[in-house]
Amino acid sequence: MGNFRRVPVGIIGASGYGGVQLVRLLLNHPELELVYLGGENSAGKSFSDIYPHLAHVVNLKVEALEPEAIARRCEVVFLSLPNGLACEIAPKLLEYGCKVLDLSADYRFRDLKTYSNWYGKKRQDIETVTNAIYGLPELYRDRISDTQLVACPGSYPTASLLALSPLLKQGLIVPESGIIDGKGGTSTGGRQAETHLLLSEAHNTLGAFNVARHRHTPEIEQICSDLAGHEVTVQFTHHLIPMVRGILATVYATLRDPGLVRDDLITIYKAFYRNSPWVKICEPGIYPQTKWTHGSNLCYLGIEVDPRTRRVIVISAIDNLIKGQSGQAIQCLNIMMGWDEMLGLPKLGFYP
Amino acid sequence: MGNFRRVPVGIIGASGYGGVQLVRLLLNHPELELVYLGGENSAGKSFSDIYPHLAHVVNLKVEALEPEAIARRCEVVFLSLPNGLACEIAPKLLEYGCKVLDLSADYRFRDLKTYSNWYGKKRQDIETVTNAIYGLPELYRDRISDTQLVACPGSYPTASLLALSPLLKQGLIVPESGIIDGKGGTSTGGRQAETHLLLSEAHNTLGAFNVARHRHTPEIEQICSDLAGHEVTVQFTHHLIPMVRGILATVYATLRDPGLVRDDLITIYKAFYRNSPWVKICEPGIYPQTKWTHGSNLCYLGIEVDPRTRRVIVISAIDNLIKGQSGQAIQCLNIMMGWDEMLGLPKLGFYP
Amino acid sequence: MGNFRRVPVGIIGASGYGGVQLVRLLLNHPELELVYLGGENSAGKSFSDIYPHLAHVVNLKVEALEPEAIARRCEVVFLSLPNGLACEIAPKLLEYGCKVLDLSADYRFRDLKTYSNWYGKKRQDIETVTNAIYGLPELYRDRISDTQLVACPGSYPTASLLALSPLLKQGLIVPESGIIDGKGGTSTGGRQAETHLLLSEAHNTLGAFNVARHRHTPEIEQICSDLAGHEVTVQFTHHLIPMVRGILATVYATLRDPGLVRDDLITIYKAFYRNSPWVKICEPGIYPQTKWTHGSNLCYLGIEVDPRTRRVIVISAIDNLIKGQSGQAIQCLNIMMGWDEMLGLPKLGFYP
Amino acid sequence: MGNFRRVPVGIIGASGYGGVQLVRLLLNHPELELVYLGGENSAGKSFSDIYPHLAHVVNLKVEALEPEAIARRCEVVFLSLPNGLACEIAPKLLEYGCKVLDLSADYRFRDLKTYSNWYGKKRQDIETVTNAIYGLPELYRDRISDTQLVACPGSYPTASLLALSPLLKQGLIVPESGIIDGKGGTSTGGRQAETHLLLSEAHNTLGAFNVARHRHTPEIEQICSDLAGHEVTVQFTHHLIPMVRGILATVYATLRDPGLVRDDLITIYKAFYRNSPWVKICEPGIYPQTKWTHGSNLCYLGIEVDPRTRRVIVISAIDNLIKGQSGQAIQCLNIMMGWDEMLGLPKLGFYP
Repeated sequence: MGNFRRVPVGIIGASGYGGVQLVRLLLNHPELELVYLGGENSAGKSFSDIYPHLAHVVNLKVEALEPEAIARRCEVVFLSLPNGLACEIAPKLLEYGCKVLDLSADYRFRDLKTYSNWYGKKRQDIETVTNAIYGLPELYRDRISDTQLVACPGSYPTASLLALSPLLKQGLIVPESGIIDGKGGTSTGGRQAETHLLLSEAHNTLGAFNVARHRHTPEIEQICSDLAGHEVTVQFTHHLIPMVRGILATVYATLRDPGLVRDDLITIYKAFYRNSPWVKICEPGIYPQTKWTHGSNLCYLGIEVDPRTRRVIVISAIDNLIKGQSGQAIQCLNIMMGWDEMLGLPKLGFYP
Repeated sequence: MGNFRRVPVGIIGASGYGGVQLVRLLLNHPELELVYLGGENSAGKSFSDIYPHLAHVVNLKVEALEPEAIARRCEVVFLSLPNGLACEIAPKLLEYGCKVLDLSADYRFRDLKTYSNWYGKKRQDIETVTNAIYGLPELYRDRISDTQLVACPGSYPTASLLALSPLLKQGLIVPESGIIDGKGGTSTGGRQAETHLLLSEAHNTLGAFNVARHRHTPEIEQICSDLAGHEVTVQFTHHLIPMVRGILATVYATLRDPGLVRDDLITIYKAFYRNSPWVKICEPGIYPQTKWTHGSNLCYLGIEVDPRTRRVIVISAIDNLIKGQSGQAIQCLNIMMGWDEMLGLPKLGFYP
Repeated sequence: MGNFRRVPVGIIGASGYGGVQLVRLLLNHPELELVYLGGENSAGKSFSDIYPHLAHVVNLKVEALEPEAIARRCEVVFLSLPNGLACEIAPKLLEYGCKVLDLSADYRFRDLKTYSNWYGKKRQDIETVTNAIYGLPELYRDRISDTQLVACPGSYPTASLLALSPLLKQGLIVPESGIIDGKGGTSTGGRQAETHLLLSEAHNTLGAFNVARHRHTPEIEQICSDLAGHEVTVQFTHHLIPMVRGILATVYATLRDPGLVRDDLITIYKAFYRNSPWVKICEPGIYPQTKWTHGSNLCYLGIEVDPRTRRVIVISAIDNLIKGQSGQAIQCLNIMMGWDEMLGLPKLGFYP
Repeated sequence: MGNFRRVPVGIIGASGYGGVQLVRLLLNHPELELVYLGGENSAGKSFSDIYPHLAHVVNLKVEALEPEAIARRCEVVFLSLPNGLACEIAPKLLEYGCKVLDLSADYRFRDLKTYSNWYGKKRQDIETVTNAIYGLPELYRDRISDTQLVACPGSYPTASLLALSPLLKQGLIVPESGIIDGKGGTSTGGRQAETHLLLSEAHNTLGAFNVARHRHTPEIEQICSDLAGHEVTVQFTHHLIPMVRGILATVYATLRDPGLVRDDLITIYKAFYRNSPWVKICEPGIYPQTKWTHGSNLCYLGIEVDPRTRRVIVISAIDNLIKGQSGQAIQCLNIMMGWDEMLGLPKLGFYP
């Protein structure tokens, strides 16, 4: 192997669920080496103080955030920060030559007004924004391979867009008919201690949150509009499910052509994703469960047509912390580095 | 109180979840006395062999099914049997003068062809069917008060119809736009040992079942058509949630009048249900959780309007074993007996 | 009923899980009327702002804490406060003539040094402490009937002491052999937002906490010593179980007399608790589950003897928020008021 | 790599949880190739009919059980069958030269009378039994490397024995003082549809099973007796926890030497396991959770001493399907083949 050296990478914001998932994925990746962990609140702590069960494999301290120092040590930096913070630090890292993959919403919107309306932060950095590529490889593989800055999609947008893309791209549905009924575990809400995420509150129950005003709505719409070639509005609802991981998006849309049957659509989906190894189309009559995806970077799509209502119904399942976040970020990095898109990523779900 | 005597009631099929819930509700009811438990498989057993934790309050044996003997002892009989069995025994009980409340699907359909298509059993008993009243008191209170046979609604139809009725009755929505995304705990599947209901299978996961072909669909459509005054088709999907109890129906529909706002709809719902003490309309911005309903006969409705999409979204929550089954049956019986519709039924949820 | 007036009661600290459970139990009690809710953090809020699902039954605001004003309105006050706060306010309420039931640890210890060692707060109020009665009615029924101040037991001590009392009282076991392996749901940890109580952390997992140093240890030991007539040391461990409610204490002890068999012990337990309607002894070979107790004030005890090891094993199950807290407090109040000890308390578990 | 060929292995009984976990572990192992799946009930089915989410990685049919044919294709066979069946087929496979790893209890007992007493099956095959080695590598590494037949330990025995071995081997505890309070998820009960394993039954609750008569008791005692050099009796109790995976064994024992403190014991444990890469000793004050082990072959041990009671308390956590079953089997096979004991096995838990 001669001069073989793994690519040094860092994570800023490693103490949350996205961070700890990313750490484990990086430890298993054959070409990457985790050399830096940064964080503001936990700076100075050992990573194993936060996650004692990883003491035997991670021997890193959480360090302060000094962009220049980070850039000297890392070729690649993942930002796993609350919305509104990544856009403060990413420009410096880019300037120093790092590849940057941002897991927050900060670079997902081409239109900063949409971002400001939904996220409540004023921004001027339109230039950086313009250079960011939306990191959904199944749609933007080519552009990702050329960029220095990836805006990793949200977990619901990932599940929703993989379900909707073949329909929109080929004009098969009435665009405004799209309804996404999203269901996700508590890890979609992160690791901060909030009352509604306590087990005593969230267990053995089910509720809807942010009905008609969830921030993932404009993100989904932006990409749907790209695919359709015109402005598309979607209905998105988030339900908090009494489980830790996983997202299921049940997507409803009205077919333009009443003659299309389930087998037609399965054929169309298989063709659309034939070069996308992380998307699996279920056989007729099979609908995925979120558990199938636990611990893997896979998205499963189950497809049904209801001839009585002329609707197509797509059930889309992912692990929100992997294909919906950290795994997809590494998938993007694999593409940026010219590697196989599956390299180092888990493809066998944790079951039962 | 003089000659006071409680009304003697029996349950056929008491060993399942509907049955054991009914037993407890009857034990707390001031005017009813449980005197008979019948069952085929468990005949001869003590009820406390099946449910040892109720040994201190129920001292009944499960007996064989002899309609004449039952009718001599019971004024009222609840049938908590698998679909297709109630219609074998109910006619005899009716003939002997019993009031009958059937928890199965056997008497829910006016049209026996629809029943046969979806439930796979041929039937000829059109006369009995014609006399059955659909036991959703919020819609059919008057007819229930006059009947001898109540067809208690399914749990999803209960949650769905309470959400849709004000909209359909007043012609506020585009009828074919209705989508019901149903989410329910494992007790919706009963107590029989099936692999997909094992904790190891159903825990920490989420999936859709019987997409586009769930049997609750025609039941919902029959009542929706009644309300609208013309044939209505709805989209209904069932998702199995990793919890025991509770149903949440997320109902989407397109408003005819784009000028209607949330407050208008809340006013309309409050008016529609002003004489229905078991339906609670949430204040603006509040959406119910299934946990709110645990152990009570309440249905909570949370209402939202999305002006971007012109859709109304109604979140409907019930306890599937109470308002969705046994509690509603007693609510109907209260009405049949001329009592207060709230008599003896629990109105405080079990929380947290 | 003529001059009938219900006894007015208040709760200080009603926003936690103990408080909301107490509110519901009081609403169902035929002789009590909830007239006051007090709290520091939530003063000024409506109770229904905190618990919207109870808006239809509770129309009270949370008020500030002014002992004199409280005493004018309430004959009885329940204190549901964090440890260390009740002892600040109880003396004033007692002085104004209120009956006080404290749900915290503040009055559970006769010896203030033990309290200070384990709870870290210095105290001088030995006089009030001396007048407090430990509110475990199955052991101290008579003294409770005469007191003005009840120190309601912790949930683990309740489950543990009901399991151990017949053995210790009659000298059947080697005292130092007692091991209590406690298992409890997350509601034992209260409603404050702490990371380790998040569903994402506590779900689908299991761990031990405060091994060899849990604060319930000295509380259990104090009463065990009373029963044995000499100093007794016990081993107690708390495990956090991925569920909301319920405590199971698995109690191990070595029998002095190797000739005792299971049936002997069941007879002894039944005799010991023959006047205690809230304790149920299971039939041979039956062991209780926590779910049996959900929503009821019952304690179930399952008893086994292992002749191979000469140990008795007692499985004790309660609902930590009812028999382990609020229900037991009302049971004590029933006794203080000269009422039937079962009055107004739920005896049918919420199942499944 | 030249003539490189992976070692062909088969699984008999692949449709249960042990089987499907084994399949996934084998797929990730660099030196093994899964070439055969056998089963009686599911013969003829595709493996992906049973587990559709693995369709993209497993393309095998379940075949009938013909030992000679199996032996021609497989160097190694894992038996994942109900107790009492492995001993019918293993002798033939051994005769044909296969290495056999049995996951059932059939070869765990040297004394067939003990086996018959606890498992209810008469056996005569004492010769095969004598050649079987108990597959707990941390204790029997050397003997495993020389055997053709491994009796893989039960999950509770694995967790319990790893906790007890250093204490017993070095005579640190009073032998008869050992109490193992076991807590395990529903996957310990397998995948057959039984009522008590339904989510509706087992969720949100907790109970003890087979108190004083669990079959894992004699298995633990046999090895404890080996370690102590004399007959040892232990108390073992199984509790079913509302979660899918994981076992926590809380082990209590009385120390002979009252002068031993926690740090001494931690030192002793670290020394005992210094060549055992799959056992991790927690730092002082840290106790493991079962979630730490999800998806990995690790056992974590947390150690505490209570000077008040002179007891040592060891908290032992494993994933019952990996270190407690399939992973440990592969660990044994690695040793039998002369490979690194960690080869191909997962060491990063699935978290959160």
